[in-house]
Amino acid sequence: MAKNAGVVGAAGFAGIELVRLLLNHPQFNLSFAASDAQAGHPLAEFYPAFTGVTDAVFVTNEEAEQTNVDVVFLAVPHKAAMTLAPTYLERGITVIDLSADFRLKDPAVYEQWYGVAHCATDWLAQATFGLPELFPQEIEQVAQIHQKGNPVLVGCAGCYPTATSLAAAPALRHGLVAEQGLIVVDAISGVTGAGKKATERTHYCFADENLEAYGVGTHRHTPEIEQILSIPGRLVFTPHLAPLRRGLLSTITMPVAPGLSASIEEVQSIYEDFYDSSSLVEVLPQGQQPRTASVCGTARAQVSIAFAAQGQALVATGAIDNLGKGAAAQALECANIVFGYAADAGLQAVAMPV
Amino acid sequence: MAKNAGVVGAAGFAGIELVRLLLNHPQFNLSFAASDAQAGHPLAEFYPAFTGVTDAVFVTNEEAEQTNVDVVFLAVPHKAAMTLAPTYLERGITVIDLSADFRLKDPAVYEQWYGVAHCATDWLAQATFGLPELFPQEIEQVAQIHQKGNPVLVGCAGCYPTATSLAAAPALRHGLVAEQGLIVVDAISGVTGAGKKATERTHYCFADENLEAYGVGTHRHTPEIEQILSIPGRLVFTPHLAPLRRGLLSTITMPVAPGLSASIEEVQSIYEDFYDSSSLVEVLPQGQQPRTASVCGTARAQVSIAFAAQGQALVATGAIDNLGKGAAAQALECANIVFGYAADAGLQAVAMPV
Amino acid sequence: MAKNAGVVGAAGFAGIELVRLLLNHPQFNLSFAASDAQAGHPLAEFYPAFTGVTDAVFVTNEEAEQTNVDVVFLAVPHKAAMTLAPTYLERGITVIDLSADFRLKDPAVYEQWYGVAHCATDWLAQATFGLPELFPQEIEQVAQIHQKGNPVLVGCAGCYPTATSLAAAPALRHGLVAEQGLIVVDAISGVTGAGKKATERTHYCFADENLEAYGVGTHRHTPEIEQILSIPGRLVFTPHLAPLRRGLLSTITMPVAPGLSASIEEVQSIYEDFYDSSSLVEVLPQGQQPRTASVCGTARAQVSIAFAAQGQALVATGAIDNLGKGAAAQALECANIVFGYAADAGLQAVAMPV
Amino acid sequence: MAKNAGVVGAAGFAGIELVRLLLNHPQFNLSFAASDAQAGHPLAEFYPAFTGVTDAVFVTNEEAEQTNVDVVFLAVPHKAAMTLAPTYLERGITVIDLSADFRLKDPAVYEQWYGVAHCATDWLAQATFGLPELFPQEIEQVAQIHQKGNPVLVGCAGCYPTATSLAAAPALRHGLVAEQGLIVVDAISGVTGAGKKATERTHYCFADENLEAYGVGTHRHTPEIEQILSIPGRLVFTPHLAPLRRGLLSTITMPVAPGLSASIEEVQSIYEDFYDSSSLVEVLPQGQQPRTASVCGTARAQVSIAFAAQGQALVATGAIDNLGKGAAAQALECANIVFGYAADAGLQAVAMPV
Repeated sequence: MAKNAGVVGAAGFAGIELVRLLLNHPQFNLSFAASDAQAGHPLAEFYPAFTGVTDAVFVTNEEAEQTNVDVVFLAVPHKAAMTLAPTYLERGITVIDLSADFRLKDPAVYEQWYGVAHCATDWLAQATFGLPELFPQEIEQVAQIHQKGNPVLVGCAGCYPTATSLAAAPALRHGLVAEQGLIVVDAISGVTGAGKKATERTHYCFADENLEAYGVGTHRHTPEIEQILSIPGRLVFTPHLAPLRRGLLSTITMPVAPGLSASIEEVQSIYEDFYDSSSLVEVLPQGQQPRTASVCGTARAQVSIAFAAQGQALVATGAIDNLGKGAAAQALECANIVFGYAADAGLQAVAMPV
Repeated sequence: MAKNAGVVGAAGFAGIELVRLLLNHPQFNLSFAASDAQAGHPLAEFYPAFTGVTDAVFVTNEEAEQTNVDVVFLAVPHKAAMTLAPTYLERGITVIDLSADFRLKDPAVYEQWYGVAHCATDWLAQATFGLPELFPQEIEQVAQIHQKGNPVLVGCAGCYPTATSLAAAPALRHGLVAEQGLIVVDAISGVTGAGKKATERTHYCFADENLEAYGVGTHRHTPEIEQILSIPGRLVFTPHLAPLRRGLLSTITMPVAPGLSASIEEVQSIYEDFYDSSSLVEVLPQGQQPRTASVCGTARAQVSIAFAAQGQALVATGAIDNLGKGAAAQALECANIVFGYAADAGLQAVAMPV
Repeated sequence: MAKNAGVVGAAGFAGIELVRLLLNHPQFNLSFAASDAQAGHPLAEFYPAFTGVTDAVFVTNEEAEQTNVDVVFLAVPHKAAMTLAPTYLERGITVIDLSADFRLKDPAVYEQWYGVAHCATDWLAQATFGLPELFPQEIEQVAQIHQKGNPVLVGCAGCYPTATSLAAAPALRHGLVAEQGLIVVDAISGVTGAGKKATERTHYCFADENLEAYGVGTHRHTPEIEQILSIPGRLVFTPHLAPLRRGLLSTITMPVAPGLSASIEEVQSIYEDFYDSSSLVEVLPQGQQPRTASVCGTARAQVSIAFAAQGQALVATGAIDNLGKGAAAQALECANIVFGYAADAGLQAVAMPV
Repeated sequence: MAKNAGVVGAAGFAGIELVRLLLNHPQFNLSFAASDAQAGHPLAEFYPAFTGVTDAVFVTNEEAEQTNVDVVFLAVPHKAAMTLAPTYLERGITVIDLSADFRLKDPAVYEQWYGVAHCATDWLAQATFGLPELFPQEIEQVAQIHQKGNPVLVGCAGCYPTATSLAAAPALRHGLVAEQGLIVVDAISGVTGAGKKATERTHYCFADENLEAYGVGTHRHTPEIEQILSIPGRLVFTPHLAPLRRGLLSTITMPVAPGLSASIEEVQSIYEDFYDSSSLVEVLPQGQQPRTASVCGTARAQVSIAFAAQGQALVATGAIDNLGKGAAAQALECANIVFGYAADAGLQAVAMPV
């Protein structure tokens, strides 16, 4: 029996991608797509890819709150999410949050990086981190709670943290990496990562044919990556913008554990075993590197691992679609698990080969 | 009961897109993907979007011919197709041809434009033109022949002819256009239209940030468009190359029929009625123009119609994905109809909204 | 002795390109770059290409008006230009206007297309149209007036009219084209043509990988092209947007004059002779098509001419940089001539070959 | 009195950019552009940006060798350069080499990374490394030798080493960086960096909308960067490919020297002082990041420096045009100095602001 799902913040880039995925999902029905700014306008007006596909119209957040659904996805900015989530949860509706509001366990860290006190710390304490391949037990536990009839709250991982952590986690969890020393993450994102707002930064004529670092030393995904990978205070994270729409590539350089004797074949095996049961994460053969184009529009991730600097370092790389596995598809994957469906239900699309 | 389908020329851009569509089709199984040049290599090696999706390996054309299938798609260059098609047809296998070899009714016209005599004129005479929205009865007839157990041959429309004809046909067929005078088609294609071969023309550094006309007065889609639209000798067709991968936009300027009194609202109605029963072609409201991004990766087309020059001309525009509705998806749509499935079975993907 | 030049509207795309050209000009000094919106900020702040190149700071329009210069370039929107120009002219300062305000000879046509009455019709009557290759005598006359110590006013041609007219004029002026029948212009522009304002239309994620027509039947360059080419009421002009920054390609389809017997070689000669003395316009050999990349960042234009439809039509193509020969470089070329310098002084840059 | 210059390997991307720069140089005349593959064809045929600019025709390498010039630029692949250079030098002609053949001081390191023994070790011993901002005395010494009438040999720095070293050197040379620990360089290049050859990698349809690392742990610029920065065995260098033509951004993460007490203002001052006398390298203000678009088509570099990870690391970023300061412009800058001209003679072009 199909479940009813609503999307709040549906006019944003992550929200509208989620709408697209829900329209094609075998189990969830799209009940509403809410956006105060676009309320009353057909989805197809702002996003003409939906012309002839759906006549759905954006509703207000207030209308959304009055609609009975089984799950609500929050694709609103941080701060807005921690205000909205309790409203739904208290009405017994499960919340899958795509914002940063329920990712960081420690409210003090949240306040430090986001510049505002967390206003839903009770719910934060109960929230589960949504990155199923790295925290499968956590989300399974939550699924059981949900299946007993309780609403649950999932705070999905961010885009940079997802690509970075999927690529780095097997090495870190298997003791391949030194317990001290900086871990350097340089990542590159397409322009959808900068959001729907028309700004100088997102103007075609400034973004095209340009490469640029940003948020050096200050990007808010820093504490999230440190939390996921359990590397407090060790991360140097530098994001970059490149001229493409969708796609995120993270390159992680990690100092090798002293005395490590593993061959590259053994390291490769560790990686392949790690993702053996994950249908959406692929470890590439040695010598092949992830391409963001190969996962564009999908829920998939590709990772690879190599030695560098005469075996002093491991270099992991991870590619995702920042709006797919980095946002909308990940949220849907979490919802799938919470509702007891296959993790990749409705998420089996294959990227355009070219 | 699923039907078995094979793709010859599967390593080309249209062929591999067809493979992608077949992997996700509710009724057809992919039996083989043939490419002499890539035989023995996994699909995922050249097209890493398939990594973790399929372990399929390219086979030789000879292996393909020895495989028992219900339908074969030919995504090989012209000349090769007219040699291969009879081989399959004579073995009772239905052929859906994506090349130019079975599009032009008159072998003399074929020889004039393609510089070689047609070597399968018997089959050409039996071939059906594959552009279902404009020739629904023809393909339905063929479907009936096929359902009686006979192999059939469909020569699918080319990319420029598809976008152009979908946009222009309602006006021409409803007498809105003068019976004399030039019809001007300027169309723009993404670089996938230039094929997989690495050349100067397809080199990133020559294609990026560039606009260029080509084949002025000589492009081989000219007689095909004239045939579809029944405008012999009246077409001036100029294709252009622009820096994007997939997408084709055709702009057709047609002199208005003398004394035409139709208002733009009436013209719009004619267009909307024309495609009323076509789930894959959308007529946009007045004032809205087709965007290729809105149909990228899909089987869909968008068209619009407007008056210009104080009512002297009609300007129709049509957008498709040249590899989708302009090639692979169109072939699959034809196969769907031939086999009695819904025309859009397996073809309901929605373009990424952004 | 160097002349002092100011730019009003210097923060816009055409204005800032003009600033770049003036910084490198052998005869003109940049006296001011005015922009009320950016006043007080260094040019390099908004346009970091100027970092380390100039410390110049945007001034207000009022400060600009109080500065003594020999020539002022107006790179402001239409309506603003016709208010500003008289202010400068009455102070004896020559004005080179990049807007549409002094292009159309007939104020009624201006009002019809721009929706506002012309408020400087006296000056309009004295303005010269700035497209030196097509109207050399007009600008030479004005140069003589200027050299006698009088301020003059040049209304420079727009981007689409420039590319279109350069490509079409030789055929039209030499009687190769029928005197009746529609002339169809389909042109494609890069996104700089849509201006500096950050909008949905100029958002990277909507402009990238997309092709789209706009302003079908209604674009304001229509009467300008008709005026330049003396083809009143015959033009169907459809502009398109493609994913590149700078570059404009215009394709013009013209019915051949009845009974025309000229061979393509003769037509080619007519074209080559026409531009024989123009160092900035190049007629390409038969079989070669203009590439916008080959004129990007320059004052240059490339044109070509071909027959199509069995000799029924001539297809001319013209490529320019919409901010170069289509705006800033053209304005500077006009100023060069007015001041008695070589037409291409400071305009000899060659496009990046790749 | 003008000097005569020739370019061998002139049909490649770096070679043809050098030709463009030489055509506009106040002191050097272009005597020949040599390319065996293109010999006999006009430059404008393959690179239509030169149409109407120069009638020059590519000559053979043999014809080049028989031409009397003052300086020859070698823009040929490695291995070819070390064979050709002695031929010219022995005839008394100064050689500016853009290849990798005369960069690495130690022939054993060359052999290790390039897989072939160095065949001109005598000349290698006399070669000067061409990166004037970092090795000003070396190139001045060579200039004096040259001005006494001797031919000299300059091996110009590679593209990645240039961007990386310009950004990292001030910190390393002023003791801001720990003397141990890995230095991590992640750099991103446009597709011109992959060269003129049409391959899968450079095919528009594979390069567009894609991000990808390559040569992980194995890129040949590794020993060159270690040599320039005197960080033997400490470098982890990972290059990436992004969808743009020209532009290279390098991000360098360096562990801070233990006990370093410098404030960011002091670090910034060190950087600004370091490049105080270099007209082509700009240190950006704190909070601003280099943009490759802002140096595209120029000889310029932009660098910035920041702390990260609570002061544990310095993150330097450097942007160049890989064909400009990363290849052709750098070679010309070296030649300028060797011939006693201003370092930036003919190299003052400013990037298009948009």
